[in-house]
Amino acid sequence: MSIHLLPTPSALLDLPCLQDNVQRLQSRLSALGVRLRPHVKTAKCVEVAQLQRAAGASGITVSTLKEAGEFFAAGFDDILYAVGIAPHKLPSVVALRQQGCRLKVIVDSVDAALAVVQAGREAGMALPVMIEIDTDGHRAGIKPDAAALIDVGRSLHDGGAVLAGVMTHYGASYEQSTPAGLQAVAEQERSGCVHAAERLRAAGLPCPEVSVGSTPTAWSAESLAGVTEVRAGVYVFNDLVMCNIGVARPEQVAMSVLATVIGHQLDKGWVLVDAGWMALSRDRGTQHQAVDYGYGAVCNEHGQLLPGWTVSAANQEHGTLTHRDGPADVQRLFPIGTRLRILPNHACATAAQFDRYHVLQPSGQPLTWERFHGW
Amino acid sequence: MSIHLLPTPSALLDLPCLQDNVQRLQSRLSALGVRLRPHVKTAKCVEVAQLQRAAGASGITVSTLKEAGEFFAAGFDDILYAVGIAPHKLPSVVALRQQGCRLKVIVDSVDAALAVVQAGREAGMALPVMIEIDTDGHRAGIKPDAAALIDVGRSLHDGGAVLAGVMTHYGASYEQSTPAGLQAVAEQERSGCVHAAERLRAAGLPCPEVSVGSTPTAWSAESLAGVTEVRAGVYVFNDLVMCNIGVARPEQVAMSVLATVIGHQLDKGWVLVDAGWMALSRDRGTQHQAVDYGYGAVCNEHGQLLPGWTVSAANQEHGTLTHRDGPADVQRLFPIGTRLRILPNHACATAAQFDRYHVLQPSGQPLTWERFHGW
Repeated sequence: MSIHLLPTPSALLDLPCLQDNVQRLQSRLSALGVRLRPHVKTAKCVEVAQLQRAAGASGITVSTLKEAGEFFAAGFDDILYAVGIAPHKLPSVVALRQQGCRLKVIVDSVDAALAVVQAGREAGMALPVMIEIDTDGHRAGIKPDAAALIDVGRSLHDGGAVLAGVMTHYGASYEQSTPAGLQAVAEQERSGCVHAAERLRAAGLPCPEVSVGSTPTAWSAESLAGVTEVRAGVYVFNDLVMCNIGVARPEQVAMSVLATVIGHQLDKGWVLVDAGWMALSRDRGTQHQAVDYGYGAVCNEHGQLLPGWTVSAANQEHGTLTHRDGPADVQRLFPIGTRLRILPNHACATAAQFDRYHVLQPSGQPLTWERFHGW
Repeated sequence: MSIHLLPTPSALLDLPCLQDNVQRLQSRLSALGVRLRPHVKTAKCVEVAQLQRAAGASGITVSTLKEAGEFFAAGFDDILYAVGIAPHKLPSVVALRQQGCRLKVIVDSVDAALAVVQAGREAGMALPVMIEIDTDGHRAGIKPDAAALIDVGRSLHDGGAVLAGVMTHYGASYEQSTPAGLQAVAEQERSGCVHAAERLRAAGLPCPEVSVGSTPTAWSAESLAGVTEVRAGVYVFNDLVMCNIGVARPEQVAMSVLATVIGHQLDKGWVLVDAGWMALSRDRGTQHQAVDYGYGAVCNEHGQLLPGWTVSAANQEHGTLTHRDGPADVQRLFPIGTRLRILPNHACATAAQFDRYHVLQPSGQPLTWERFHGW
């Protein structure tokens, strides 16, 4: 289907750009001697994960058990569920493993570890568990030096569970914006997680896997010594937050929202489009970064950035486009019916607003990929 | 299904609270002598709209043509699509009308009006159109005094279209937080829209409908003289933004997100739950209001507010709960597995993250209502 005939708002994927994103990070990590386990929460799309696997990815990371079930049904059987397990979700984990899914869960406390052990024993299986390490003080996890690390490791070494390794996510890497800063936090992520693994091993516990990652650190780490795998998600699409951090350029953003001009406020220089926050998401991830893109950066229908134009305000189904230099001749520049593409602040959040992607191929051949929603 | 057995995160609806919200605003507007045309974009749920209709609502307002099609299929045939029409959507409008749907569209420019006239002529029908009036300088619409109003009215009086009236939405009412301020903006909304109708009539044009509304102004208008119908959406669920504005109390918020405690950071007094921004949405509507609730206010599993506890940070599938007074004994207060309900900042945004509602009835009988997603 031609871009002129697509409904608006729609989520577009630029396939050559997507393939380039997939290939570049895979090449980098392969050269560094580690596996890439992409986080499929960004796209929640089987076809995207198949591209990542074809490029060399090893296993996937998921953020929900819904993703685990959907991707397992689509032929992905090596899955890390990278959110601390809630005890009532363990029967679903057991059921997936009984069907042959090599699903791993994570914990960061003795209480959660004991819940896993109990569920595993009741099911007559040892559930593989990774311990979440807190390398950035940002969210969940056990500090690499904390005594609790060994307590949790010992709790898991007991019949219903098996300690599969340690994992961390340096989410605070999103606060960096210089190569030196990014390299420093990547090293902090690596060294903290490797240190935790060494402490567990020194205590006589197994720790085969050392899993780290975020898109900014995956692009910035100079050494990954001691790491076995890297997890990254948003690199597959990229977004304006990644551009501000410095690990992507706008032309490397593979996902955009197609919108149509529906009106103007001539005295204010406003252009109104039919993509509001329901389409773009409420994510304002660039708000405190070097360039605040509002709810997104504006491109023409061919995907060429229109410098200075952003979605400066959004209601549920209305976006308001303005230029940073103030009013322009908006009725002439953007007549009613004009189609525009909006680059997202945060691809994970924007993509989640859509049920499918319209994939733009060089051949012009129409292609639609479905994505998951909900839990 | 008992609340203890529901998956998390889930969207909950408190049915008695919802029915009370529906009844109270309907009673108020009936007493003021105007019809209520609820905006179904908040719930996007047939059963919710059926409750509104049973209570006396007259027609519905939609924010997408997807909603128009879904609600028409469910037996709602009097529909106002309250986003400026994009020309390429007119064939869908024509198709719905050919099936018997009394769908109206809105325009705020001669260009859009001419596109409607052309589509109507090509289809051999007069499409009913309302002119959008800008009473708050907030978004779309023609100023009540602008010359363009008459130009647009005349454009619509020409074969392919019929002028059905004027409509406005005082979105800036969300910036008010006192009864006097709310009454003033409600009067501004009313008087501006009525003035536009009078100008059209004075120019010899028909203007049967005068449609105004937003939840804050619907609750605050002292007079609705000259108005024929009020549109309001979020009143059906209410949310923390409405509480800060002063038109609802937390116990009148009918929708919440059920979440489970998955961990703690004891030194910081953090409680981690499995509801992040994917469940709660990225909406930070209370950020600049009297009380900033972060990503939501925390209740126990019975729905009782836990004063001072908010979701102060959110990642995709993690929410971080903190107390405004700093660290508490979180492990004792909220052990792993504890279920909590989170009240949303903005019900329209949070509800949109879910495919269904789990409806809590006094009988305890399980009930699930589906909702729409996408365009």
